[in-house]
Amino acid sequence: MCTPKETIIDLRSDTLSQPTDEMRVAMANAVVGDDVYGEDPTVQELEQKCAELFQKEAGLFVCSGTMGNLISIMCHCQYRGSEAIVGQSSHVFLYEQAGASTIANVSMNTIPNNDDGTYSLDEFQKRIRGSDSHEPITSLAIVENTHNICGGKVIPLEWIDELASICKDNNIKMHMDGARIFHAAEYLNVPVARITRDFDSVTFCLSKSLCAPVGSVLMGSNEFIRMARRYRKALGGGMRQVGILAAAGLVALNQIVPRIGDVHEHTKQIAQAIYDMKSPYLTVDIDTVQSNICMIHFLQPKKYSAQYFVERLNRVTSKELSDGITDKFGNGIIVKVMARDEWNCIRYVTYFHINGEMTELAIKKIKYCITELD
Amino acid sequence: MCTPKETIIDLRSDTLSQPTDEMRVAMANAVVGDDVYGEDPTVQELEQKCAELFQKEAGLFVCSGTMGNLISIMCHCQYRGSEAIVGQSSHVFLYEQAGASTIANVSMNTIPNNDDGTYSLDEFQKRIRGSDSHEPITSLAIVENTHNICGGKVIPLEWIDELASICKDNNIKMHMDGARIFHAAEYLNVPVARITRDFDSVTFCLSKSLCAPVGSVLMGSNEFIRMARRYRKALGGGMRQVGILAAAGLVALNQIVPRIGDVHEHTKQIAQAIYDMKSPYLTVDIDTVQSNICMIHFLQPKKYSAQYFVERLNRVTSKELSDGITDKFGNGIIVKVMARDEWNCIRYVTYFHINGEMTELAIKKIKYCITELD
Amino acid sequence: MCTPKETIIDLRSDTLSQPTDEMRVAMANAVVGDDVYGEDPTVQELEQKCAELFQKEAGLFVCSGTMGNLISIMCHCQYRGSEAIVGQSSHVFLYEQAGASTIANVSMNTIPNNDDGTYSLDEFQKRIRGSDSHEPITSLAIVENTHNICGGKVIPLEWIDELASICKDNNIKMHMDGARIFHAAEYLNVPVARITRDFDSVTFCLSKSLCAPVGSVLMGSNEFIRMARRYRKALGGGMRQVGILAAAGLVALNQIVPRIGDVHEHTKQIAQAIYDMKSPYLTVDIDTVQSNICMIHFLQPKKYSAQYFVERLNRVTSKELSDGITDKFGNGIIVKVMARDEWNCIRYVTYFHINGEMTELAIKKIKYCITELD
Amino acid sequence: MCTPKETIIDLRSDTLSQPTDEMRVAMANAVVGDDVYGEDPTVQELEQKCAELFQKEAGLFVCSGTMGNLISIMCHCQYRGSEAIVGQSSHVFLYEQAGASTIANVSMNTIPNNDDGTYSLDEFQKRIRGSDSHEPITSLAIVENTHNICGGKVIPLEWIDELASICKDNNIKMHMDGARIFHAAEYLNVPVARITRDFDSVTFCLSKSLCAPVGSVLMGSNEFIRMARRYRKALGGGMRQVGILAAAGLVALNQIVPRIGDVHEHTKQIAQAIYDMKSPYLTVDIDTVQSNICMIHFLQPKKYSAQYFVERLNRVTSKELSDGITDKFGNGIIVKVMARDEWNCIRYVTYFHINGEMTELAIKKIKYCITELD
Repeated sequence: MCTPKETIIDLRSDTLSQPTDEMRVAMANAVVGDDVYGEDPTVQELEQKCAELFQKEAGLFVCSGTMGNLISIMCHCQYRGSEAIVGQSSHVFLYEQAGASTIANVSMNTIPNNDDGTYSLDEFQKRIRGSDSHEPITSLAIVENTHNICGGKVIPLEWIDELASICKDNNIKMHMDGARIFHAAEYLNVPVARITRDFDSVTFCLSKSLCAPVGSVLMGSNEFIRMARRYRKALGGGMRQVGILAAAGLVALNQIVPRIGDVHEHTKQIAQAIYDMKSPYLTVDIDTVQSNICMIHFLQPKKYSAQYFVERLNRVTSKELSDGITDKFGNGIIVKVMARDEWNCIRYVTYFHINGEMTELAIKKIKYCITELD
Repeated sequence: MCTPKETIIDLRSDTLSQPTDEMRVAMANAVVGDDVYGEDPTVQELEQKCAELFQKEAGLFVCSGTMGNLISIMCHCQYRGSEAIVGQSSHVFLYEQAGASTIANVSMNTIPNNDDGTYSLDEFQKRIRGSDSHEPITSLAIVENTHNICGGKVIPLEWIDELASICKDNNIKMHMDGARIFHAAEYLNVPVARITRDFDSVTFCLSKSLCAPVGSVLMGSNEFIRMARRYRKALGGGMRQVGILAAAGLVALNQIVPRIGDVHEHTKQIAQAIYDMKSPYLTVDIDTVQSNICMIHFLQPKKYSAQYFVERLNRVTSKELSDGITDKFGNGIIVKVMARDEWNCIRYVTYFHINGEMTELAIKKIKYCITELD
Repeated sequence: MCTPKETIIDLRSDTLSQPTDEMRVAMANAVVGDDVYGEDPTVQELEQKCAELFQKEAGLFVCSGTMGNLISIMCHCQYRGSEAIVGQSSHVFLYEQAGASTIANVSMNTIPNNDDGTYSLDEFQKRIRGSDSHEPITSLAIVENTHNICGGKVIPLEWIDELASICKDNNIKMHMDGARIFHAAEYLNVPVARITRDFDSVTFCLSKSLCAPVGSVLMGSNEFIRMARRYRKALGGGMRQVGILAAAGLVALNQIVPRIGDVHEHTKQIAQAIYDMKSPYLTVDIDTVQSNICMIHFLQPKKYSAQYFVERLNRVTSKELSDGITDKFGNGIIVKVMARDEWNCIRYVTYFHINGEMTELAIKKIKYCITELD
Repeated sequence: MCTPKETIIDLRSDTLSQPTDEMRVAMANAVVGDDVYGEDPTVQELEQKCAELFQKEAGLFVCSGTMGNLISIMCHCQYRGSEAIVGQSSHVFLYEQAGASTIANVSMNTIPNNDDGTYSLDEFQKRIRGSDSHEPITSLAIVENTHNICGGKVIPLEWIDELASICKDNNIKMHMDGARIFHAAEYLNVPVARITRDFDSVTFCLSKSLCAPVGSVLMGSNEFIRMARRYRKALGGGMRQVGILAAAGLVALNQIVPRIGDVHEHTKQIAQAIYDMKSPYLTVDIDTVQSNICMIHFLQPKKYSAQYFVERLNRVTSKELSDGITDKFGNGIIVKVMARDEWNCIRYVTYFHINGEMTELAIKKIKYCITELD
């Protein structure tokens, strides 16, 4: 007699994506050197390839998106007493320990994000500081694309272009936190370079839905990257035979990026299934599912908490087994997602490993649990 | 033939208030010593007197309100990676060069201020950070009272008490930027100590409407003031025979504080006069004039800019002279105020030196210029 | 019957100097305005006068020498990751809470000071950092003149000129902590402007031997002072009717500076008296007494501690009274000085108020107490 | 006809060491998870194993030794205005961009290192700051072991114990930069835990002579590691499937650490060969070669620069080929080392890959080039 084993479909985050077999082979065989001495050919290949993709002069491998954002802020806000304007729901303000201020001495002036991940450009103009000595110096604007907390929204190009025009007029640098920018490019059907055309720097993550184990790449002008390399060293992000990690990154660009369309499809399928349930307790805004992140909103009056539903999806009951909520081997299904109770919602995220079959299983389980409510 | 001389009524700010004759005498005769050595009896007298007034253990003379706020933030946010929750229209965020972040490495989490100078306590609770390593640590809440940009509003005691309860539950320190707190006490008809009862620190300014030339006093526990003294030194705020300045501060408490009621009366008289004009172009919210600051709002559609009206009040025309808009010597009247064009308003501030006669002259001039519009 | 009163001659520091009567009158009558608005004529007069004296483009009144040094470091070390080279016994490293690092994020690279207050220029050149990303950027050199801990030593002009040449070659800014620079000028018999000719900034103190109650003045280029004004504001050093203090500063320049020669004379008289005692326990290096500070060294094997002698000078015994160690009214004499036990020495400092008669009394008391040893 | 290929023996640094085949296999097969979510079993295994080895409560994988040192400084120097006492030739002061000051706002008080990597404990005691507000707070002492710039010297246990006693008496935390601490343990023939017994934290590098591609491990108390994890996140050092790198680290502990004795032997063989040449131009201090680093000193009067000799070793002449200075295939030999011209010396470093045969070739080449001098 054997213990039943559940099929786990982990939609908490695309950071959970495992390196693919191709990545593991590439890492095992990577030609490497000491990158602090500038002698690692694999990381250099990755940095150059990314620079070309984004049509910037140079690239730099960094440990994480957080480090990429922090370094960018340090570079662009050289003048003591600088301020960056950022979205109030942006990752850089909410989830990077406010390192812009606490590590890099830069004030963050936060504007409420609209539902689509943008912020008001009228408000942006009001937030630009004057020149007198009571005020800090507005040095930088940051845009997150796709926007995580806003539900994976893709920032419209028109908005970006308008922001760029204001920034140019006011001598404000621009940085894109493009952790999931390839998802934006897929949705907009444009090259990533078009999206970041007017930005002084951009970072994207290899270790989110691109499945590489570790790392992000930061791009900008030669001068910017020269400074960024210095600050990476100061923060302790200079690594030696880092080509091991870069090798996985190169695979990610070749293997995973072309498959992002499928990932978006799976996200939408789950969202559509939830929407079609017409539950009085929860729903999704089906028209705004744009990439690999979706928010499930709990409706007012809120009978069930987001956390309650997260826990329900995480359990397998004997009743649901007998009702056939199983995989093809008869194993129960667990769907892992994350609650954001303060906003009455649940976030799910898909990625490369969540294939069509797993998507169907997730839908089966979610629909069953929604039906179960009341 | 002689050049006409105008009577200037300067309502730009109460920081413009000059030391009184009594202050000048006190400064000239002050018994002083080297305060860095702890040997200045006059500054010690002031610090003790203020500590008693606010019922805190100790006090510290500082160069400015900005320094008092910065030091408080440094003391309360000892833990690296701290965040302070502040009003979005607060002086500490808008007009202190964001020193909390740029000097003291503390993130500022800004909540929009309500018209009455408070901020939403529901929102406050949402802004309190969780414990995981993605987020900074919420260490401090700051309240400004009276609230400058909100038009000299006095923060209601009930709101303060509710905020204090939340802060206590969440182990968050409280600092009051009480630059003009004596105006709040006058309006509420309570001692200042009641207002700051639950605050870990409070600073107020001697050099705003209290007319002293320089300085603020910071109060808190003995341990807080011990730390504050250290950081004052680090910032370069340790001064030698500073009893000279403290002597004027002592006069301010005795001579000026009891006269704040008159100052409020003059503010209201000007506001009432403007209100009674029923101008289609500008008005004041008469019910909310509470202290010595008042905002004149320009109405939509905005035919005249705030800046236009500021410049008009700053000029004397031959027509207005012939229309009798003069002082008792026949001199023209200039009223100086400050425009805040980004908010379509003008701020005026009264203080000790703006006596009843000057208030009447200001009203005469302002009414004339309002009539002149269109 | 009356309590005996001692004559106290306080040589602990020239910061203890009291404002003169002329200063008190000037402060009481100063024409002042709000300096944050740029409207205080007296502080402007002081700043302009100092700029002229030092032949720099502009000046700025600051709260203290510590603030002047900190602001200068902030201005000159704009590039993140900067380092300043400073003497290991310099005030900026020892006694300013290491604010360069702890407030302004600047590394201090300390070179041991020679006895004459200079440091090895060979060592200086070795300390200049290379360009690779392991190292900070050498942005600034600081010179203290006269050098406090080295016993009021005047830095030789030849050394300064050689340092300036190295700094120019290496694109390193120069700041002089000239707290007591007028003493250097007196000793060298040159204008202060000659001493600071090649420095990008210089600060001197009004509140040390110049007797003013509070403040220092910082000088440099227009661009430097513009930045300095900003950082002064950020640190909380922007003050309102600060002309009160500046008025005393103007008196200091006129009344006290021309009398520095007398002060030096008194320092030397005390030193000579000690030297002439040929005590086996303590002595002074008579040839190196150059300004208003002198160190009394305790000799090896050290029978008496510096602290012991400090306490002895601070007491009056009945025996010494009967031995005639009194002032002209028969009162006992107390001489206050400071021990630096870690360096086995005592520092005494003279200033304007220590006139010829007080100098003689101090000598009488010190000689008596030296004789008393053993 | 084919181009001659040289055998390159790279002794510039042990950071150049390549991952071993065993490491590549381990990385390719590592079981990994999202470490930011605490779900990577391989990194947890490494952290626990290291904690046990060093007998500390917990461990943390970090990107680099620089990051490990910086985080430790951030943790131990919580109090604003802290100072760390460090060796003047320490890596943390010389080669980490002075991040302690420039990133973490901590002053560094540098004591000259003795030749053996220690510093004077008398001087250490003098450097401990007093309690008054002029001075920063001495919070931390840092020891580097083995000491890189001092030529791989192993810090004597007696000295460590004495330092620990002073630190305990003065409430000063202790951090060991043990980048190459396994070399110290090998030389002293004690467990690493004995060396770091009294230290509050210690970091060692997997990517120097231990051959792993990337990373260091930081150890300390549970509370320390909890804080360290927070600051690692803030700096951007939180990585996802980092078990890939940790897998190589586990191999390093098992495969490389037991072979350190051989590495030391090879270092000594090269040193002995140089010493035996009795060259008038360069030598090594043979008695002090203790680990895997050795300094070749150029003697006075210095006829040849260190850089000259570095370049000579980097070239192959036809004469040397005909003189038989080749490997067994007849290829020329290149030895790469690093010059430190400012100190008139060359550093060479051995590691796992520099086996007996390569050591012999290096000796052959070096001896030839020494003979060639004059």
